[in-house]
Amino acid sequence: MFRLISTVQVKTCSKCYPVYIGFNLLDFLNVFLSRNDLKGKFALVSHKSLIDIYGGKIISSINRLDSDAVIIDVPEGEESKSLNVLTQIYDVLVNNRFDRWSTIIAFGGGVIGDLAGFTAATFMRGINLVQIPSTLLAQVDSSIGGKVAINYRGKNIIGAFYQPNLVVTDLNLLKSLPIREFNSGLAEVIKYGVVVDPQILNILENCSKPLPDDVIAELVTRSCNCKARIVEADERDEKDIRIMLNFGHTIGHAIEAASNFKINHGEAIAIGMVYEAKLSVMLGFLDVDVVDRLINILSRFGLPTSVNQLDIERILSSLRYDKKIKHGKIRLILLKSIGNPIVHDDVSIGSIRKVLKM
Amino acid sequence: MFRLISTVQVKTCSKCYPVYIGFNLLDFLNVFLSRNDLKGKFALVSHKSLIDIYGGKIISSINRLDSDAVIIDVPEGEESKSLNVLTQIYDVLVNNRFDRWSTIIAFGGGVIGDLAGFTAATFMRGINLVQIPSTLLAQVDSSIGGKVAINYRGKNIIGAFYQPNLVVTDLNLLKSLPIREFNSGLAEVIKYGVVVDPQILNILENCSKPLPDDVIAELVTRSCNCKARIVEADERDEKDIRIMLNFGHTIGHAIEAASNFKINHGEAIAIGMVYEAKLSVMLGFLDVDVVDRLINILSRFGLPTSVNQLDIERILSSLRYDKKIKHGKIRLILLKSIGNPIVHDDVSIGSIRKVLKM
Repeated sequence: MFRLISTVQVKTCSKCYPVYIGFNLLDFLNVFLSRNDLKGKFALVSHKSLIDIYGGKIISSINRLDSDAVIIDVPEGEESKSLNVLTQIYDVLVNNRFDRWSTIIAFGGGVIGDLAGFTAATFMRGINLVQIPSTLLAQVDSSIGGKVAINYRGKNIIGAFYQPNLVVTDLNLLKSLPIREFNSGLAEVIKYGVVVDPQILNILENCSKPLPDDVIAELVTRSCNCKARIVEADERDEKDIRIMLNFGHTIGHAIEAASNFKINHGEAIAIGMVYEAKLSVMLGFLDVDVVDRLINILSRFGLPTSVNQLDIERILSSLRYDKKIKHGKIRLILLKSIGNPIVHDDVSIGSIRKVLKM
Repeated sequence: MFRLISTVQVKTCSKCYPVYIGFNLLDFLNVFLSRNDLKGKFALVSHKSLIDIYGGKIISSINRLDSDAVIIDVPEGEESKSLNVLTQIYDVLVNNRFDRWSTIIAFGGGVIGDLAGFTAATFMRGINLVQIPSTLLAQVDSSIGGKVAINYRGKNIIGAFYQPNLVVTDLNLLKSLPIREFNSGLAEVIKYGVVVDPQILNILENCSKPLPDDVIAELVTRSCNCKARIVEADERDEKDIRIMLNFGHTIGHAIEAASNFKINHGEAIAIGMVYEAKLSVMLGFLDVDVVDRLINILSRFGLPTSVNQLDIERILSSLRYDKKIKHGKIRLILLKSIGNPIVHDDVSIGSIRKVLKM
């Protein structure tokens, strides 16, 4: 049987939907699909490695609904978030006569969620979407909130806001994650702790390692709650609320790019948070103790906290083409204290250079 | 000076926006843009024929806001609603460093509105969109309500719901429309009369011809009001409300396709309305007098009312792949009386064949 730990409701103007968090949920996918009135045709968009292990049980779960599923196998890696792969998925949907009442199941990490989510957002003006995030990063962040996109001459240049009908977060999936990927997801969990829910930091400072199941369940639930509340307040990222979740991301994205993605997303965000916190100290907003506390927590989970040998000028040039640039000025999230972020509209490249050299 | 006749407000959950209806509005575009806080970069997406005449005044109007505009010239015709042209527009936006606060102005008929609207919906997860409909059809229908799309292996297979920030409906633009195109737009006006606002039919039966300016202004305002109220009640076409506006369109679309688009959209909808009304009579819902009244009004404005020499089997085979097919059954809007449409979920191909042969 499955063990449902919590259900986080996300109420946006475009859709209200549940995030089911628990263990062994994947075997009972049909229960969650039918609770949300999904039937008809399904497309399972995933990677071969996941399909090999879980494809069979997902398909048979769907068959229990008297429905069929077509499997769409997408190569791993950011390169799959392309117009080319998108078109291939459209082709499968057209060939299989998908209609407006059909459903796409995005089963994977952020790449699958973004790509399959954008397909669902744009096929026949939007069809049903189920997110089944397979990584910690996707479970606490990208599967909730409707940001979907593909890359085109830049990251996430083509995209939409498109909420799923439901999210199925099976914590069993985390057990087979490589430790580096799990810790990378923890970087986003730590971000919620810094920006929204300080209790997360207390938990991470005091829990045993490796993290017990009940602690993971609590951290994921708390993170999903943070994300849900913020998305509800600012679904389309227009009101300087959702942007708070970009703490660590402006410098982080630039670091990710400057490392040629050898530093993964979570690691880059870890480093980005440290430098954006240092910048907050340098500009007189934040007490320096917070930087030390942040570095300690990140280090406890093997996350990097400095740019080390990266080319600082390369990081700065990546910064210059960022979606968060408004009317040509760099916008950054700074900290006044834990749980108290602010938007700063006019940070100079000079101050960022200075802090990266610290 | 401009003459603003009416402002129809459209209040959807995703956006609230005004439709400005009047004469000579285009010369004062800057007034309407700044009323709605639009500044930054603009892209004017239109056809060469319109750019040649109006491009200069639109650009200088934008310059009055201390903003610049790039002009994107799209070939006329449905073929422009393609992935290929879409990608070309993305390229111009990336090359010109458009950001999330930039604006696309869709100036043209339904093709431009759909294509430029879909670009705005998907570039950087959605940028500002101004609709300036240049045809009667676009003014009363496609510019309002956020349906945007391109064609891919079928009409409007890739699309979104994306509301504009404002609509500028300059009735002067109608004066240079070919009479066939103007009448084609009247088919949609007549549809609003049949489905929502019977007063429209009274006006069309009793007005002088050619239609005087004040009558056109009233018909456009009434039509925009019909569209706005229905879109507000059912933005994403999920509640069997917005679908009522598909009266005439199920058979109409099939006729358009079966004629290889020699019969234009409005004309096809005119014929479609007649046969869907006849079907309503045949299935016992509607009094036959309504069909006669509808045929009289359509004929008064030179619109066709019968399939004549079209291949009926070709129409039927076009019907079989239609977005309005739900779980394999043909859904049609039928009439119980003027102003009283109903959704019928299970019309057989046989009854449609029979009525087309009447």
